[in-house]
Amino acid sequence: MNEKEKAPKSRQSLPRGTYQKRYYKKRTPVQEYSGTLPERRMRSYVPQQQKENKRASVKIIPLGGLNEIGKNMTVFECSNDMFILDCGLSFPDSEMLGVDIVIPDFAYVERNRDKIRGIVITHGHEDHIGGLVYLLKKVNVPVYATKLTIGLIEGKLKEQGLYGTVKLNVVEPRKTVKMGCMAVEFIKVNHSIPDAVGMAIHTPAGVIIHTGDFKIDYTPIDGKIIDLARFGELGNKGVLALMSESTNAERSGYTHSEKTVGESFDKLFQQAEGKRIIIATFSSNIHRVQQIINSAVKYNRKVVTFGRSMVNVINIATELGYLNIPDGTLIDIELMDNYNSEDIVLITTGSQGEPMSALTRMAMNDHHKVVITPMDFIIISAKPIPGNEKYVTKVVNELMKSGAEVIYEDMYEVHVSGHACQEELKLMIALTKPKFFIPVHGEYKHLKKHSELALQMGIPEENIIIAEIGNVIETDGNKMSIVSQVPAGRTLVDGLGVGDVGSIVLRDRKHLAQDGIIIVVIGLNRNSNRISAGPDIISRGFVYVRESEELMKDAKKCLADILSRCTVAELREWNFLKNKMRDDLSDFFYEKTKRSPMILPIIMEI
Amino acid sequence: MNEKEKAPKSRQSLPRGTYQKRYYKKRTPVQEYSGTLPERRMRSYVPQQQKENKRASVKIIPLGGLNEIGKNMTVFECSNDMFILDCGLSFPDSEMLGVDIVIPDFAYVERNRDKIRGIVITHGHEDHIGGLVYLLKKVNVPVYATKLTIGLIEGKLKEQGLYGTVKLNVVEPRKTVKMGCMAVEFIKVNHSIPDAVGMAIHTPAGVIIHTGDFKIDYTPIDGKIIDLARFGELGNKGVLALMSESTNAERSGYTHSEKTVGESFDKLFQQAEGKRIIIATFSSNIHRVQQIINSAVKYNRKVVTFGRSMVNVINIATELGYLNIPDGTLIDIELMDNYNSEDIVLITTGSQGEPMSALTRMAMNDHHKVVITPMDFIIISAKPIPGNEKYVTKVVNELMKSGAEVIYEDMYEVHVSGHACQEELKLMIALTKPKFFIPVHGEYKHLKKHSELALQMGIPEENIIIAEIGNVIETDGNKMSIVSQVPAGRTLVDGLGVGDVGSIVLRDRKHLAQDGIIIVVIGLNRNSNRISAGPDIISRGFVYVRESEELMKDAKKCLADILSRCTVAELREWNFLKNKMRDDLSDFFYEKTKRSPMILPIIMEI
Repeated sequence: MNEKEKAPKSRQSLPRGTYQKRYYKKRTPVQEYSGTLPERRMRSYVPQQQKENKRASVKIIPLGGLNEIGKNMTVFECSNDMFILDCGLSFPDSEMLGVDIVIPDFAYVERNRDKIRGIVITHGHEDHIGGLVYLLKKVNVPVYATKLTIGLIEGKLKEQGLYGTVKLNVVEPRKTVKMGCMAVEFIKVNHSIPDAVGMAIHTPAGVIIHTGDFKIDYTPIDGKIIDLARFGELGNKGVLALMSESTNAERSGYTHSEKTVGESFDKLFQQAEGKRIIIATFSSNIHRVQQIINSAVKYNRKVVTFGRSMVNVINIATELGYLNIPDGTLIDIELMDNYNSEDIVLITTGSQGEPMSALTRMAMNDHHKVVITPMDFIIISAKPIPGNEKYVTKVVNELMKSGAEVIYEDMYEVHVSGHACQEELKLMIALTKPKFFIPVHGEYKHLKKHSELALQMGIPEENIIIAEIGNVIETDGNKMSIVSQVPAGRTLVDGLGVGDVGSIVLRDRKHLAQDGIIIVVIGLNRNSNRISAGPDIISRGFVYVRESEELMKDAKKCLADILSRCTVAELREWNFLKNKMRDDLSDFFYEKTKRSPMILPIIMEI
Repeated sequence: MNEKEKAPKSRQSLPRGTYQKRYYKKRTPVQEYSGTLPERRMRSYVPQQQKENKRASVKIIPLGGLNEIGKNMTVFECSNDMFILDCGLSFPDSEMLGVDIVIPDFAYVERNRDKIRGIVITHGHEDHIGGLVYLLKKVNVPVYATKLTIGLIEGKLKEQGLYGTVKLNVVEPRKTVKMGCMAVEFIKVNHSIPDAVGMAIHTPAGVIIHTGDFKIDYTPIDGKIIDLARFGELGNKGVLALMSESTNAERSGYTHSEKTVGESFDKLFQQAEGKRIIIATFSSNIHRVQQIINSAVKYNRKVVTFGRSMVNVINIATELGYLNIPDGTLIDIELMDNYNSEDIVLITTGSQGEPMSALTRMAMNDHHKVVITPMDFIIISAKPIPGNEKYVTKVVNELMKSGAEVIYEDMYEVHVSGHACQEELKLMIALTKPKFFIPVHGEYKHLKKHSELALQMGIPEENIIIAEIGNVIETDGNKMSIVSQVPAGRTLVDGLGVGDVGSIVLRDRKHLAQDGIIIVVIGLNRNSNRISAGPDIISRGFVYVRESEELMKDAKKCLADILSRCTVAELREWNFLKNKMRDDLSDFFYEKTKRSPMILPIIMEI
């Protein structure tokens, strides 16, 4: 606490002129004026601290994205200032029955709402922005991101009726945003969505680099290569810590350039001559969409878009200048029938086999506009996310049954990853030469593999931190370690409910899903304490009742026997009575069926 | 019908001596005496039919394994004779909540029980034998299989108390079993379980080859290479149809030899020096287990086995001579503590991350005998079956968190497939030179890819049949086509219940799993037709009740309002009343929560 308060004070106590002068003397003019104002301040500030050999403490608190894929969120804290980097969602796993999405636990952020200076966002994917609307409802602070990312966030705010209530700020790469005593510099990276950035966080303890999601693409579709030079420059000046994404840390080599997919498209368009082409991909992969449009123009085809999010994102991207669609290329879905099938390309959602998506509905012959025939040439330009394999396979099978040709998975090069493989991860470490290394974005196995790469490259084991969400990683610029823990976890969103589905509800849902429910109702006369109605037994999700009448009749008889043997005193003890009915019926059904339905006894007082 | 009856008659009407003589004249002595008696009969029989230019009709009826992975089962039918080839199970997909296993629909077989001469089994995997006990309970006929397969089936019959009631027959490869007017010849193939065979089915219409599951391994662990020569010989004499498995039809090239895994083990055992080794694999992969034992012996380690099925299968395989374990190698789990960790190897189940398996329990720190530490070297010698990826990943993450080194997925070559890749599938077609081709064992995409291979190799499109389960494929030796349909589908097994869980129960379970259930109870006085108790509202799996008291109170109030406005006449109409309560409450909860729990109104008459 002392240390924290001391840091800013010591800077402020110096006469401003002296301070600047002393600083300038040490550097060449070229270096002097690079960077934006806050960055210069940071740089001038750090040596001051170093001189005293006592830097301010900076804390890094991951609230999501470690030991999991998704819901990325990190808090940076220094003195009385905090800011948030990304606020994503993740999708429920198979245990989270009925849950729509999962967001980080915001308790720590809410508790510190007064300290939060803003939110910076690395890019517009759901695992980085999907929790934002929920967070902003609790903590309304300014949001900083690049143009396209802000465009996508705006769309989300409009949907939630929050548009206009939040301050959205467009930040260009190489520009810096001040966050109290820290400053965040945006650095261009390549990824499977345009306008992605990594962040250099200039703190009193030193520079911390967070890569966000990235890959290295020397031939990106928009021509903007990841700003390797700036990463190198920062590395040269000294990077305290590198937080680098680990999604592909298990994969050796390099991720291919997005451009290779365009080359595949060109070949496949030739092969598909005379047929209608349907391509499914992620709506956010705007460069992929651009390449489909390029091939369409080249082969004189019109483009029709399908799926709400596809139409949505294409609109936003076109408006903001991220998509270049020649006039007359895009046609309305209603005008599709005016063209020959072989002269059009459909771009659609559903590359993950999502049950309600346009492609799935086409495959199931349930789409109001598109019927699949042997004259269709279909390309699934994506890789199934772990857990979605079976959905994608189902769609592929159904499309093939309709006679269509289907290009999927590893056939041809119709998809490349948006994440850096091992050689790219090493390049990032080599450029930034960090003192400390914190692998982020990944399950434990990814973080571990990434750590091994850093270790191979000479970062000492004690300087590598594999953290968990909620860990408070503290640094003074010399040391870095996990010092404490704040509340962190997952909040389940189901319908309008945020956090009202917890472990008890999930346990019940799982039980109900496994063997269904049996409800037993009796009416108990409150005066005589005798059973005046029932027992009635009703089941749902247990057995097909019409073919199990005998079983249910036996169960009722068994229960009536039990109740008839109960004393009046026992009938008065409702808890005893309920437990007895539950246990005895449970035994009865288990013996008969080897199943354990949920048994719910209800006593009505009459 | 005429044709069918005529066929056998025409043969029997000939004096036996003449018949044999005529037949022998046409062939060289070497060919004469090859094959077993039934095969010779078949051969002699077919030319007779050809002469009349009117062969008997043979039907092939797949009842499982087409357009799906698993529950393989095929019926062959000729005249009044039928036999069954394989009877497997499949595992429930994510939609089949609470279901334990899935078996084929036996309706067609039960209806024809008198015609069934026996069941032949290609190998001992669950997707080929897992439905057998259920079938034998309905249709008790002799079972024919190779020695190990019979050993595994025996184990299953014992578990179900059926041992001794079924006639089990061990058949050697190259031997033939008579099935009425058909005969089935067993032909050695390679697979991920020893003693696997394909079948040549000699019928009056010609020879039909069913490969079963196979791969081509030139260096198998037991030295027994797939009997390519016999497939070639049959091909040379003329094969009417080839039914070949399609599991790996999407994969180019060749499947590697099982031996490559042994070489990897040797390298990894060296690498693991000083550490305990834990290897997870399928219990049925006896050659894999043999290779682990070989490496253990080589590196002076003792072996301990974990998991019920692993212990079970190793016992059976050792007893029958399929595993060669030097004395003193296998030690009892209770004696494990007498050895240093670095001197032992654990072989365990759980390679698919199954929640209750030994490896998973070790990973979750929930195993009574094994605690994972950084001194463990763990090899997962298997590939996740589609749908299991997330379970395996979870286990890998947890093992790594305990500090263990984990070798998994594509790292090193610790697993090879048991199924033929494209080049092997082509070799099978080239050897057997079938007139007709029926791809089997696979989803539609696999069957389609396999068909494309056959087409490339010159089999005319009209001679390739992609069938569905229940299709009746009929052939007279000249033509082959799908002529009709018999009942086929899936029977769900849940606990002791076989078939009592159907679409209604599954729909209810899904509904319950999504949003839980709300039960509304009212007591209605049968004399006054007035509500004398309730309404009471109870929920499970909907919201965390303690934090939603307000919501439930409002719901109760809403319901009481509705009921108070009901006329006596309406209260008398229970169906009306129930529907009203359901609809109004459903609207109420959807508006408040955007969720749709199952709503179950219960009226008690008092």
